[in-house]
Amino acid sequence: MNITVFYGSSRKNGNSELLAREVLKGFCFDALHLYDLNIVPIEDKRHDSEGFTVLHDDYDLIIQQILKSDVLVFATPIYWYSMSGSMKVMIDRLSQAIRDERYPNLKEHLQKVKVIVLAVGGDEPYIKGLPMIQQFNYIFVFLGMSFDHYLLAKGNRPGDVLLDSKAINETQMLNKWLQELKNATRNC
Amino acid sequence: MNITVFYGSSRKNGNSELLAREVLKGFCFDALHLYDLNIVPIEDKRHDSEGFTVLHDDYDLIIQQILKSDVLVFATPIYWYSMSGSMKVMIDRLSQAIRDERYPNLKEHLQKVKVIVLAVGGDEPYIKGLPMIQQFNYIFVFLGMSFDHYLLAKGNRPGDVLLDSKAINETQMLNKWLQELKNATRNC
Amino acid sequence: MNITVFYGSSRKNGNSELLAREVLKGFCFDALHLYDLNIVPIEDKRHDSEGFTVLHDDYDLIIQQILKSDVLVFATPIYWYSMSGSMKVMIDRLSQAIRDERYPNLKEHLQKVKVIVLAVGGDEPYIKGLPMIQQFNYIFVFLGMSFDHYLLAKGNRPGDVLLDSKAINETQMLNKWLQELKNATRNC
Amino acid sequence: MNITVFYGSSRKNGNSELLAREVLKGFCFDALHLYDLNIVPIEDKRHDSEGFTVLHDDYDLIIQQILKSDVLVFATPIYWYSMSGSMKVMIDRLSQAIRDERYPNLKEHLQKVKVIVLAVGGDEPYIKGLPMIQQFNYIFVFLGMSFDHYLLAKGNRPGDVLLDSKAINETQMLNKWLQELKNATRNC
Repeated sequence: MNITVFYGSSRKNGNSELLAREVLKGFCFDALHLYDLNIVPIEDKRHDSEGFTVLHDDYDLIIQQILKSDVLVFATPIYWYSMSGSMKVMIDRLSQAIRDERYPNLKEHLQKVKVIVLAVGGDEPYIKGLPMIQQFNYIFVFLGMSFDHYLLAKGNRPGDVLLDSKAINETQMLNKWLQELKNATRNC
Repeated sequence: MNITVFYGSSRKNGNSELLAREVLKGFCFDALHLYDLNIVPIEDKRHDSEGFTVLHDDYDLIIQQILKSDVLVFATPIYWYSMSGSMKVMIDRLSQAIRDERYPNLKEHLQKVKVIVLAVGGDEPYIKGLPMIQQFNYIFVFLGMSFDHYLLAKGNRPGDVLLDSKAINETQMLNKWLQELKNATRNC
Repeated sequence: MNITVFYGSSRKNGNSELLAREVLKGFCFDALHLYDLNIVPIEDKRHDSEGFTVLHDDYDLIIQQILKSDVLVFATPIYWYSMSGSMKVMIDRLSQAIRDERYPNLKEHLQKVKVIVLAVGGDEPYIKGLPMIQQFNYIFVFLGMSFDHYLLAKGNRPGDVLLDSKAINETQMLNKWLQELKNATRNC
Repeated sequence: MNITVFYGSSRKNGNSELLAREVLKGFCFDALHLYDLNIVPIEDKRHDSEGFTVLHDDYDLIIQQILKSDVLVFATPIYWYSMSGSMKVMIDRLSQAIRDERYPNLKEHLQKVKVIVLAVGGDEPYIKGLPMIQQFNYIFVFLGMSFDHYLLAKGNRPGDVLLDSKAINETQMLNKWLQELKNATRNC
């Protein structure tokens, strides 16, 4: 079972990353720090006769990573009540990616992966993070993907999230869920 | 009365831009296409002892533009149920800007400007755009700003929005509101 | 074209009623004041072997009214950020109504009616009324109904809503939309 | 530490009640089944010169119960994506209660109680229950109350909720939180 985490933070070892590591304790997984990648904002050419232009940045890495994953984890700090700009730029590019002839199976593959969203915020994330969760849901519904779990946690200064005992408890539930998923996959 | 529009689209003359022009008919205004600017994603150093690093990109233009504006218009396509990545990257940087010692009056100034949000989407914007409106509201509340008007409109192919008669009617209301604002400003 | 308005307010001539009358200017329509009707809260027997018990209150009036309507208008004050209790009690009973063997065509009929939601609130209705709009949307999606228009307006003291010029302008748009609907119906 | 649960369901031993009992395992608590009480919908007289009329129903019980509670638990099934009509009718009456001269301390008392919301729904409660949570939040913010915890759980047929292992795990967290609250209260 291949797991990939997309980190939306600019900080290494930031709260959303710490939270993801709790969820993934005991698992091997690939991690992409979006901040370190060169991903340019989408140029919307859905309605151009020539279609999208192939862009020479790091987005292919993301697509290839998705294609070999069974589980995707989106781990983002809550910046201004939504996912980080780096993650939004990455999400926006999906409009191009699902039309990219070099990856004809992307959309179909997305519909088979399991999805977890993890988000850490400092300003009442359990309430003010909810519109972001609704947006993730619309995204996954549009793409025909599942939206298996989300976890909102509290944290501001680096390391804070480990003190959010409710969130940490939920990471254990998610860890267990992943274990069961892994076991089920093996049996097939 | 100085008006600035921030365009979040990658397309010139896209639907959100057309909508803004309807709202601003008869007004002089400055327009910044975020897609054309070089704005790097925030590196979150709120909790670093040295604080934020001054970045050498085009963000100063944005701050200077805000500082001379009485009205800010955020005009964005709805990409994946939220503002465009370009606009989100710009918003994220506010965390740094309001702490930037070179602009000590920024936060205070923001609390005096009038704000309009215009957004155009293809997939039920009147419903699925609502979480984004809630997020804009949280942003403006956090900064102590007003949130005077928002307008969600329907459009997919370039030009579509002009056929959304309900939205076009609302642009006239907003235009009239701006006229009254301008007249009131003159009297002071 | 038969139009029915459900009034959720306890006040006669309250703001939501005034708003509805603006929308319906020039139209004949039936109006039901939910507060005047005897509607008991649903007793959830979806999972009872005998099913729901026929209740002897005024709910049959509501079903019969729906069945002869082409357009339904839900006009409610925003009480505590949602529809009034009277309207919620009425909505809840739909779970029983759509299973009521005496009205086998109800669900099918609902899928043909046009729907407008009007709501008036005193505390930032344009923002804090949005979760209610999302709920109405979920309700209509569940039932396979359309959700043609909603209008959030500001008002507290009786009559206030008539001073909300933006809302009043929108009532004219809705009135025009109803005119077009009526004309289209005639041609069929 | 006095705990009161308000049950919004029409069913005895329904899912939301089972969930509440898990949360409250080992605690003494008072329970009010709203469905069994006679609570009439509010007649909005906030703007009448004479003010509200004292109503002769069971609402006084609710106020008195609140006044002697340190913790309030709102346990409701999700009917049509929101709290049950019975609970909404009860909430609406708060507008009268906080102006009721017989209970001058009600508002102040509300600002000291701890609050838990428990809700069980059959149709994607983790997503479609979110607007309801936002509304509860607006209610509690308006009243100056705290909003300590909410728990959304999945359930349709009676007993279902006990199979929602994630929710049951969260009930244990809430139970522990209540224990700590109780211990802290003792020390004061």
